[in-house]
Amino acid sequence: MVEAPFFSPALRRPSHVFSFSDRSMTDSEIQAAIHDMGRRARAAAHELVKLSTAQKNTILLAMADEIEAQESHILTENAKDLERAAANGLSKAMIDRLTLDPKRLKAIAQAVREVAALPDPVGEVLEQRTRPNGLLITKKRVPIGVIGIIFESRPNVTTDAASLCFKTGNATLLRGGSEAIHSNVALAAALQAGGERAGLPADSVQLIPFTDRSSVEHMAKMDQYLDLIIPRGGKGLIEKVVSTARMPVIKHYDGVCHVYVNREADQTMAADIIINAKTQKPGVCNALETVLVDREIAATFYPVLGQRLAAAGVAIHADPEAQAQLGVPSEPATEQDWGTEWLDLILSTKTVAGPDEAITHINRYGSHHTDSIITRDRALAERFQHEVDSAVVLHNASTRFNDGGEFGFGAEIGISTDKLHARGPMGLAELCSYKYLIDGSGQVRQ
Amino acid sequence: MVEAPFFSPALRRPSHVFSFSDRSMTDSEIQAAIHDMGRRARAAAHELVKLSTAQKNTILLAMADEIEAQESHILTENAKDLERAAANGLSKAMIDRLTLDPKRLKAIAQAVREVAALPDPVGEVLEQRTRPNGLLITKKRVPIGVIGIIFESRPNVTTDAASLCFKTGNATLLRGGSEAIHSNVALAAALQAGGERAGLPADSVQLIPFTDRSSVEHMAKMDQYLDLIIPRGGKGLIEKVVSTARMPVIKHYDGVCHVYVNREADQTMAADIIINAKTQKPGVCNALETVLVDREIAATFYPVLGQRLAAAGVAIHADPEAQAQLGVPSEPATEQDWGTEWLDLILSTKTVAGPDEAITHINRYGSHHTDSIITRDRALAERFQHEVDSAVVLHNASTRFNDGGEFGFGAEIGISTDKLHARGPMGLAELCSYKYLIDGSGQVRQ
Repeated sequence: MVEAPFFSPALRRPSHVFSFSDRSMTDSEIQAAIHDMGRRARAAAHELVKLSTAQKNTILLAMADEIEAQESHILTENAKDLERAAANGLSKAMIDRLTLDPKRLKAIAQAVREVAALPDPVGEVLEQRTRPNGLLITKKRVPIGVIGIIFESRPNVTTDAASLCFKTGNATLLRGGSEAIHSNVALAAALQAGGERAGLPADSVQLIPFTDRSSVEHMAKMDQYLDLIIPRGGKGLIEKVVSTARMPVIKHYDGVCHVYVNREADQTMAADIIINAKTQKPGVCNALETVLVDREIAATFYPVLGQRLAAAGVAIHADPEAQAQLGVPSEPATEQDWGTEWLDLILSTKTVAGPDEAITHINRYGSHHTDSIITRDRALAERFQHEVDSAVVLHNASTRFNDGGEFGFGAEIGISTDKLHARGPMGLAELCSYKYLIDGSGQVRQ
Repeated sequence: MVEAPFFSPALRRPSHVFSFSDRSMTDSEIQAAIHDMGRRARAAAHELVKLSTAQKNTILLAMADEIEAQESHILTENAKDLERAAANGLSKAMIDRLTLDPKRLKAIAQAVREVAALPDPVGEVLEQRTRPNGLLITKKRVPIGVIGIIFESRPNVTTDAASLCFKTGNATLLRGGSEAIHSNVALAAALQAGGERAGLPADSVQLIPFTDRSSVEHMAKMDQYLDLIIPRGGKGLIEKVVSTARMPVIKHYDGVCHVYVNREADQTMAADIIINAKTQKPGVCNALETVLVDREIAATFYPVLGQRLAAAGVAIHADPEAQAQLGVPSEPATEQDWGTEWLDLILSTKTVAGPDEAITHINRYGSHHTDSIITRDRALAERFQHEVDSAVVLHNASTRFNDGGEFGFGAEIGISTDKLHARGPMGLAELCSYKYLIDGSGQVRQ
């Protein structure tokens, strides 16, 4: 027997206001309930493909309105999560991430309206060709089907993920963490209820009310109902999904991002980019973690860099050559540091013989996320971009630009560290699949 | 202790002629050996990105020449497999699939030359945009990296898969079945040896010499070295890989393909297409398995269809309405028949009320592979193509056209039943990933 926070047939009609009550269910009952939700999500997906862009946008606006209309209910539910968080002694930062208020709720609704305003990638003709036998082959962008989102803490992921998936014609099965369960259920219910009044098929947006670990496992195994799982959270969560899932998983792993300062660099530009990439928002995956500096310019560049980093309050883990030249205090870098995502005002720095060593180091210790070269040598920059095996490789720009918004995608569901299907910023187009339509006049194969 | 057919340090230099000897190794020794091959494949992949299209094509031609040059060695090794096959009592059909002879080997070499002649998708610019801040973002097609191919019986998969993966700049780790192990090793060694003389990086094409089941598991778990696994074989093999793999798997599952004969069909065309789709090559995944017929035309169409099927030697599993009208003997169809891939001269047939029932039936019982509607009603055909959730949906054409060659892809590594990354025929472009190159002039994020 495992504890489920609540389960009620009312979940089948999420437009109802839930009355939550803790009940215990057996694991096989939980599994059956999750399978039933999957089956209904699949049915919803078949209905969703019939909606036009205009219908989908109308539904998104109705969802946003409903979030605002249900403000008091959602905040009441959120208060339950906050109460439990306080009782469980969660950190102030964690509690802040959980907290909703009228202003934040308005921003959540506004984000859904912004998704309505984005262009719809579904139906786009990607390729078309007529074969010698007269067959017309059209490759068209279509929804993926049913997408599972497994996420932690922040309740706004519920609405962000569901609205992006819905905009692209996908049904969603959401499974959030226990910290935000009441908020998540209330938000998902508002999306479904508001949407349904505007024509949203039943069960298009469902939130799984079980927050124990086995529910992740049940989701990850039901590849008959889920076409894709996107885990949004820490490495532990992603690992758990990857090791269990039978369906494709798009992963948003760590970013161990590099800036390589080549001997032909504009050194002022290099320092500006390093400071920006490290300090503008240190806690995100496209923030800088390791600087590589050509030995030839170490004597001139390190003292400048040391001053700038010290002024910005950045602690330095450096190799012996860098330590000798930075002119500010630093710790000796360990082997482990080269693979560390600091997510903090800490930077690793290493001296290299030249581009070959830099590229080899990045491909070995990096996470294939985002890396940048600073140089005036255009041919070298091209070689670096070609040989560094990362999703985004920049020349003379900050690593912080690996971002759906900065790419002009309008919205992103994350930054993929995978190489299949989606790599780098994952926007609406990456939430789609494609199919081939073939039009003939009786052709048979010889 | 598990039995390995052979293992020798000579594998590191596959250009040597192997002397096979059965040795027993512990499972952890096998695991270590497979990991070592993976690590070397990853290193090879970093070298492969440096090759130009011309270099790759020269290498492919050298590989083809080497296959012909090593004819007697390869046929000697093949004879060992055939001997064991006979001793193990394999069927005549199985033995035929295993058999190589000078003519077949020439065809294998020729297939490699044809891959050299295909256009190279690597380096293609897929999108390019300049952002308001001046950043130039280029989305470019690049190799995936290291691809694992797990396959059964036919030795030509070794050369087909390796040459397609190499053309797209990927390193391959091949793991074939025990029936063809000597042939597979000889072929992979010829590819690597011939290629190396023309500049192929070491370890670009490696064949795993272990054929026990645990070797599949070791491969499927080493996501640090393998970016993708493509299993080519029966459902059991694919299931095994799917349930173990930590990296993306592109699956080539069954094709339970349908032809839906709408009341507005040209009935002669419908019968021609059904006969072609069912009988032209019944043992393949894009062959027809189930026919759906509108009730309104059942009385006129079934008798014609019955005659044509009987004349073609096709056994029929039919619903009661069809049984009553076909005018030829048939068996009653069971619920299980609707989901069965016959791969033989057997056809299921069902009477439906109209397009809604046909679409629902296909989405429920089909395998999302290939389905066709026969109708003169263009609007209905569009609706069918839109709502049937399959990789390829045809109008007035045979299901047999879901094929890379028929699409003009030049070659295919299989027909994907997945919705992520590759759906339908998987050609060279689908053996590629992409990356973003960003060119700036010192941009930092505000």
